[in-house]
Amino acid sequence: MDIKANMQALGQRARIASAAMAKASTAAKNQALQAIAHAIRRDAAILRAANEQDLAAARTAGLEPAMLDRLTLSEQAINTMAEGLEQMVKLPDPVGEITDMKFRPSGIQIGKMRVPLGVIGIIYEARPNVTVDAAGLCIKSGNATILRGGSEAIHCNRALAKLVREGLSSAGLPADAVQVVDTTDRAAVGALITMPEYVDVIVPRGGKSLIARLMQEATVPMIKHLDGICHVYIDDKADLQKAVPVAFNAKCHRYGTCNTMETLLVARSVAPAFLPAVAAQYQEKQVELRCDPEAAAILQAYPYLATATEEDWRTEYLAPVLAVKIVADVDEAIAHINRYSSKHTESIITEDYTRAMQFLREVDSSSVMVNASTRFADGFEYGLGAEIGISNDKLHARGPVGLEGLTSQKYVVFGSGQIRQ
Amino acid sequence: MDIKANMQALGQRARIASAAMAKASTAAKNQALQAIAHAIRRDAAILRAANEQDLAAARTAGLEPAMLDRLTLSEQAINTMAEGLEQMVKLPDPVGEITDMKFRPSGIQIGKMRVPLGVIGIIYEARPNVTVDAAGLCIKSGNATILRGGSEAIHCNRALAKLVREGLSSAGLPADAVQVVDTTDRAAVGALITMPEYVDVIVPRGGKSLIARLMQEATVPMIKHLDGICHVYIDDKADLQKAVPVAFNAKCHRYGTCNTMETLLVARSVAPAFLPAVAAQYQEKQVELRCDPEAAAILQAYPYLATATEEDWRTEYLAPVLAVKIVADVDEAIAHINRYSSKHTESIITEDYTRAMQFLREVDSSSVMVNASTRFADGFEYGLGAEIGISNDKLHARGPVGLEGLTSQKYVVFGSGQIRQ
Repeated sequence: MDIKANMQALGQRARIASAAMAKASTAAKNQALQAIAHAIRRDAAILRAANEQDLAAARTAGLEPAMLDRLTLSEQAINTMAEGLEQMVKLPDPVGEITDMKFRPSGIQIGKMRVPLGVIGIIYEARPNVTVDAAGLCIKSGNATILRGGSEAIHCNRALAKLVREGLSSAGLPADAVQVVDTTDRAAVGALITMPEYVDVIVPRGGKSLIARLMQEATVPMIKHLDGICHVYIDDKADLQKAVPVAFNAKCHRYGTCNTMETLLVARSVAPAFLPAVAAQYQEKQVELRCDPEAAAILQAYPYLATATEEDWRTEYLAPVLAVKIVADVDEAIAHINRYSSKHTESIITEDYTRAMQFLREVDSSSVMVNASTRFADGFEYGLGAEIGISNDKLHARGPVGLEGLTSQKYVVFGSGQIRQ
Repeated sequence: MDIKANMQALGQRARIASAAMAKASTAAKNQALQAIAHAIRRDAAILRAANEQDLAAARTAGLEPAMLDRLTLSEQAINTMAEGLEQMVKLPDPVGEITDMKFRPSGIQIGKMRVPLGVIGIIYEARPNVTVDAAGLCIKSGNATILRGGSEAIHCNRALAKLVREGLSSAGLPADAVQVVDTTDRAAVGALITMPEYVDVIVPRGGKSLIARLMQEATVPMIKHLDGICHVYIDDKADLQKAVPVAFNAKCHRYGTCNTMETLLVARSVAPAFLPAVAAQYQEKQVELRCDPEAAAILQAYPYLATATEEDWRTEYLAPVLAVKIVADVDEAIAHINRYSSKHTESIITEDYTRAMQFLREVDSSSVMVNASTRFADGFEYGLGAEIGISNDKLHARGPVGLEGLTSQKYVVFGSGQIRQ
């Protein structure tokens, strides 16, 4: 009960702060971002010491190396956080932008004004840099935020929260615009997702089991960042000079990211030419290829060959492993994708205009590409600036969520005394 | 359990139909709309007979006159339904529209493509015309829909469903793109709002108690159509030649609509001039004025005067009743609105530029107006064509929801073999 009351108090303070943030000037918001960047650089040693406390506890708890890696705040990571804030200063302020103004026959002029969402709750992994990125994005977009990072990062997050509050205050903005949940009790998450009176939207990042739990319990709407089971389809009209590098890049540029290709679909008639060519490159990286029988027959000499099962079409490996399947044509590729994909990012490699257009139209994913690596599905690459996550949802924000995804549009009407007839 | 299984089967069929609808041509969708309009005119007598069955049952059940009125399908109402479909034919098809294309330094070209949401569940009152409007909007926007109208209209909705299916089939589209829930059992609603695997969004229309129940139970996201506690604020820089007609129109043009003004806020210094002038008009319509003490002192001679209580600031009267409050200035007006409004529509009457801009920026409602009647907050008046409701939500669709609100945007990338560096 104490936790619930504490979270409600946090929510109340956030709601009050959100009103001030909504009308904050661009100059004040930018000043806060710059002050936080400055404080982070100034207190780098303090941040590293706090991080060291977290790391020591995590090592004792036997955390996996990949998670330790994400938790670590190196000198370079501290600098990158500060730079990220400085880049946000340069992004245009989305708040207050009026678009689509048009006159109606009644004489009123109607358009849309972009406004903050209000209070945003963000639930994320034990990655201290997300604390700063998320705080920065929420400040710039005029929102208040409640941040709940992974409990393993609690010391570091507390230290960062102090600097963020200092930066907000120095710019004349309410320190409560960014609050870090100061408990590792999981009940805090339960409270956060069930107080729609104080929280307008929840952005959950993290594993499937977290999201599944939130979907059952949340009464606050969510912008969900789910897994990425991304596909590349090599059409029989593909230019193999493009297909091989894209298929290699989509898998091997980075294994652990959500926009990495996990299943490669190949049109039957080009498979005998394409598969050995791309496999020669995968072999250098020791990529395991889990093939359907047809692809396996073509790649029988490949040293890291395995047999694909139904489960492979549904798996996000995040590792040097790739599912490979032969399909008849673009229709079968689209049907496979719409059945198994997590609706994140898919790409077709083809020189055929009509098939490219069909793929763009019919594939039901947040990013659909022609002749490009799925690795481009990213806020920076799309020109949004920073991103808070990549939404697999269809409502509101879809794909990489930047400043615009943290805002809403209301209708504005300019009249001169019109009444309805 | 049977109901749940039946709803799941409905959902499965809708999901399959949605794939065909998403790629349907504009011509086929328009042909379906025209065929349905034709069938409605042709079978007007059959529809009226089915409606007569509903009305007889409703009279026996002792339904209120206002609800009987909404349930009644007059000859004119039948014609209006058909005309509504014919107007939708003329609206541009939102699906497939690509916008915001830009080149990125990597060489990829990135933009957004508008796509249907998928399967839309609509829960609404016993108003047969909504069945046809909703079906038409979902067809035009390339979605499949499951319609659950008020049980009092079941016979009429069945008859309409038959004509809609006939129209879809005649245009080569799947009849299952529009399904009417063929049971009056309330368990059907419970099933509909908890099958996210088959339903992408729920649009609930109707009373507060329905929405409150759905908010507790739904696991499918919602676009909620709530109540309208709309305000007009008469600033001390208002032109009274505009203020009086707007304040009269916003209350008296129609009492039962959600964009009708329910609370009138008046700046202290103009209240002695403004209130008697507008009251002279309200008096002709016998509008009850529930006033705070200051306004009551000015209007003491008004024959339908009453005292406002705290409850009045939170009440949607939908009747010739108006709450009236004196405020110091635009700041107090905005504070009152953001506290009590249902975030639907608010209007300021002023000649002062800075206050107009402040009101537009700081009032947190789906429509914010300057010098215009709140009655303009409507899909037709805004130029959206028909509307499925007016969203009080901030995420996704806000304000009047037309064809665009029933769609989403995905990112599309045109490349020429780019790989991520």
